[in-house]
Amino acid sequence: MAQSLPVSPLAKPLPPLHAVPGVKLGAYEANIRYKNRLDLVMFQFESSTQVAGVFTKNLCPGAPIDWCRNALQVTGGTARALVVNAGNANVFTGQAGKITTQETAEAAAKLVGCRPEEILLASTGVIGEKLDSHKITTPLPHLFSHMTETKWEEAARGIMTTDTFAKASTRKTTINGSTVIIQGIAKGSGMIAPDMATMLCFIATNAAIPAPILQELLAENIQDTFNSITVDSDTSTSDTVLLFATGTAKNTPPFSSQSQELNHFKKALHEVLLDLALMVISDGEGAQKIFKVCVKGAQSDNSAKRIAQSIANSPLVKTAIAGEDANWGRVVMAVGKSGEPANRDTLSIMIGGIPVAINGVAVKNYDETPVVAHMKTPNILIEVDLGIGQGQSHMWSCDLTHGYIDINGSYRS
Amino acid sequence: MAQSLPVSPLAKPLPPLHAVPGVKLGAYEANIRYKNRLDLVMFQFESSTQVAGVFTKNLCPGAPIDWCRNALQVTGGTARALVVNAGNANVFTGQAGKITTQETAEAAAKLVGCRPEEILLASTGVIGEKLDSHKITTPLPHLFSHMTETKWEEAARGIMTTDTFAKASTRKTTINGSTVIIQGIAKGSGMIAPDMATMLCFIATNAAIPAPILQELLAENIQDTFNSITVDSDTSTSDTVLLFATGTAKNTPPFSSQSQELNHFKKALHEVLLDLALMVISDGEGAQKIFKVCVKGAQSDNSAKRIAQSIANSPLVKTAIAGEDANWGRVVMAVGKSGEPANRDTLSIMIGGIPVAINGVAVKNYDETPVVAHMKTPNILIEVDLGIGQGQSHMWSCDLTHGYIDINGSYRS
Repeated sequence: MAQSLPVSPLAKPLPPLHAVPGVKLGAYEANIRYKNRLDLVMFQFESSTQVAGVFTKNLCPGAPIDWCRNALQVTGGTARALVVNAGNANVFTGQAGKITTQETAEAAAKLVGCRPEEILLASTGVIGEKLDSHKITTPLPHLFSHMTETKWEEAARGIMTTDTFAKASTRKTTINGSTVIIQGIAKGSGMIAPDMATMLCFIATNAAIPAPILQELLAENIQDTFNSITVDSDTSTSDTVLLFATGTAKNTPPFSSQSQELNHFKKALHEVLLDLALMVISDGEGAQKIFKVCVKGAQSDNSAKRIAQSIANSPLVKTAIAGEDANWGRVVMAVGKSGEPANRDTLSIMIGGIPVAINGVAVKNYDETPVVAHMKTPNILIEVDLGIGQGQSHMWSCDLTHGYIDINGSYRS
Repeated sequence: MAQSLPVSPLAKPLPPLHAVPGVKLGAYEANIRYKNRLDLVMFQFESSTQVAGVFTKNLCPGAPIDWCRNALQVTGGTARALVVNAGNANVFTGQAGKITTQETAEAAAKLVGCRPEEILLASTGVIGEKLDSHKITTPLPHLFSHMTETKWEEAARGIMTTDTFAKASTRKTTINGSTVIIQGIAKGSGMIAPDMATMLCFIATNAAIPAPILQELLAENIQDTFNSITVDSDTSTSDTVLLFATGTAKNTPPFSSQSQELNHFKKALHEVLLDLALMVISDGEGAQKIFKVCVKGAQSDNSAKRIAQSIANSPLVKTAIAGEDANWGRVVMAVGKSGEPANRDTLSIMIGGIPVAINGVAVKNYDETPVVAHMKTPNILIEVDLGIGQGQSHMWSCDLTHGYIDINGSYRS
């Protein structure tokens, strides 16, 4: 079971967490699938809290994804609460799954005193098993009555499934002179996992930012963070990132996502998202190392992205990283298999900043010592220059080890 | 090293092999990279032998691929010999790699007494290391002078790299009443591998079939065979399938690839290609089981193919097969992540012929016993019905085990 997995060697300790004014939260042991651990989490937000969301592109999403997409549409981007459970993803559960989301939202709305559509939902865990709403709605009043502004750590633990460590990140910054806080939690190890699943991320700020602008900020900053990580190329049916802005900082709201006054906020939001995204791959199933793939000189940024993805997802590249083998031949292969424009004779590769191949030929008699030393570190850098254009992009990934097979190749039992 | 790998539990013994009239061949220990094993192979063909070829779609192909593509163009599809080496793929070797192919072809052409372009070449092995042509051209005269019609087994062994067993298939059939033989050898374990690499397949027949028709027959039959297998989604820079027709059977040549008179030949060719393709994945690095993914009810055949590929390549599906876990939730995930049109509520899944999910919901109280028994066999069948159209396709793959990590995650040295 998840609890008995050894903690990732790349685990980060929780930073000191703060209250985010306008947010109360808590966690509870609801025994949805796990015993003796927190598995039900609730956030409550000040009235008129704005929300933005980004969801899985998987075309067979879970019922909570359908619920959230519709709720954001109906409310135009306001939310009063979020209910999350771990242990059952409520995916591939047909009409029953839809009823569970409706009943859960109604129960939470009654407690909070709002419309059901102002309740957002997320579930993570086993796929294809019915999730009875009473498993959530029965303990919910107790959880609701015990929420405080300070239970961020419990919430971070309560959403874990195969995660081996709790994930949170926090920043203080300013908008128009007002100090604001941005703080988030995340979970996820494989992009999806057997009995467990999914990447979830919930971020709250006390800044006042209208929902349409919040959505633009999230969409813009997700590209280089959560949309630039991969564990095993598999895409969960439940991936969710939600960003809540309670507005209690009472800053003058920005007029546009491009306003100069948002520059500090954007930087801090990007840092929180990147922190959490890298923690997710650092907890990739069996991960011992993470690596960044930087591609430049491609025909376009999109082309560079697809090449970076091809390298970051290649099982042969990922096993080479695990084996501390500076095997650039596999990088060439992954460039070629991406199907993107590339020219063998202008292709150059650097590992750990050291050129190993230039213009299609291995660097002669290069000093392998620093490359070998770099491969032994837990953070590997692979740079590829296609030499045919100006496009650039990057991806982060983790190595593929025996641990991945152990975790994913065992009986469900 | 390759030689010390345990033989795949899915290994097939070599069938009794025959002479293919018009073909002489042999193998030699040239010490290109491996000691104490055959690593240089040559085929010689009767004059006016016709040839068809299918090559890797990887956009960073090896120099021998460039050579073959050009040679087929120049000759219009005739060949007098084939030279293959194992141990060095001559990939990413720049101008030096091009010179090696030229010098090798010239040396072989001199021995045979033909134009260099009538010599085809294939190399498999490490990427990015210069392949000196003299390593091939020096032993070539000795190899050439010892070739016979019967050395098929030596040739099958001579092209092996990480393969744990030699692969060959043979059929007898008729064209217009003339008995003809179709016989081939193949190598390949991962789609590409570290020090070794690639899938190679060479088939010869004594049938008389003009090159343009031979090319159509090969292209048509490759789709459901070599283009429908995957080990790790990684695509070699050197994949090559060549089909030679010596014409010594002196049958009346067919006028079209659609001629009725080719029906038996097509069936036999398909069987040889499928035999060899399944042997390649049975020798997938670390493979303990193979599985077939059949997709129907998709919007189109192409869409079905992409869904089948998504399932067949999913590390989570492949580890579930390894763990003998009938984890259909991962199949749903892989359908969804393919990005192809799919509807959760019409999606049905069968494992080993037993329905486990129908129209988006798990089958209630289904008898798991036969499914569990099926998962313990070495040949697993996963069927997916999208329920939205008439498109269908299939893929074969192998499981993802600790063996894969052992083979690909170890140091190169």
